[in-house]
Amino acid sequence: MCEANAYLRKDGKEELFLENVDRVIPHEDGILLEDIFGRRKIVKARIVELALVDHRIILEKEE
Amino acid sequence: MCEANAYLRKDGKEELFLENVDRVIPHEDGILLEDIFGRRKIVKARIVELALVDHRIILEKEE
Repeated sequence: MCEANAYLRKDGKEELFLENVDRVIPHEDGILLEDIFGRRKIVKARIVELALVDHRIILEKEE
Repeated sequence: MCEANAYLRKDGKEELFLENVDRVIPHEDGILLEDIFGRRKIVKARIVELALVDHRIILEKEE
């Protein structure tokens, strides 16, 4: 399976935000992440980088 | 490998833009896509949706 882990970058550190992410959908009020089990999380952040082969999604919190 | 194909949506149709995408990096002037061979393409577009398990990146052209 090709899901990825989403990390939230804040103050130069990366924290794991959601594992096994399947879908990433930018919205006006943030980014919607959905994992392979259908669980959803919205975060007010922007996409910094996706590294698919490394299974990494890097987000940065927006204030 | 968990690369994806990037499609550009325009006038309701999706066109294949780049295959085997590894990295997706939003920039001020568009989105930088890099495939697993290191080839890069920049497109003035926004991310509509990433569907990692389906290996699909959907972009929409910005005018």
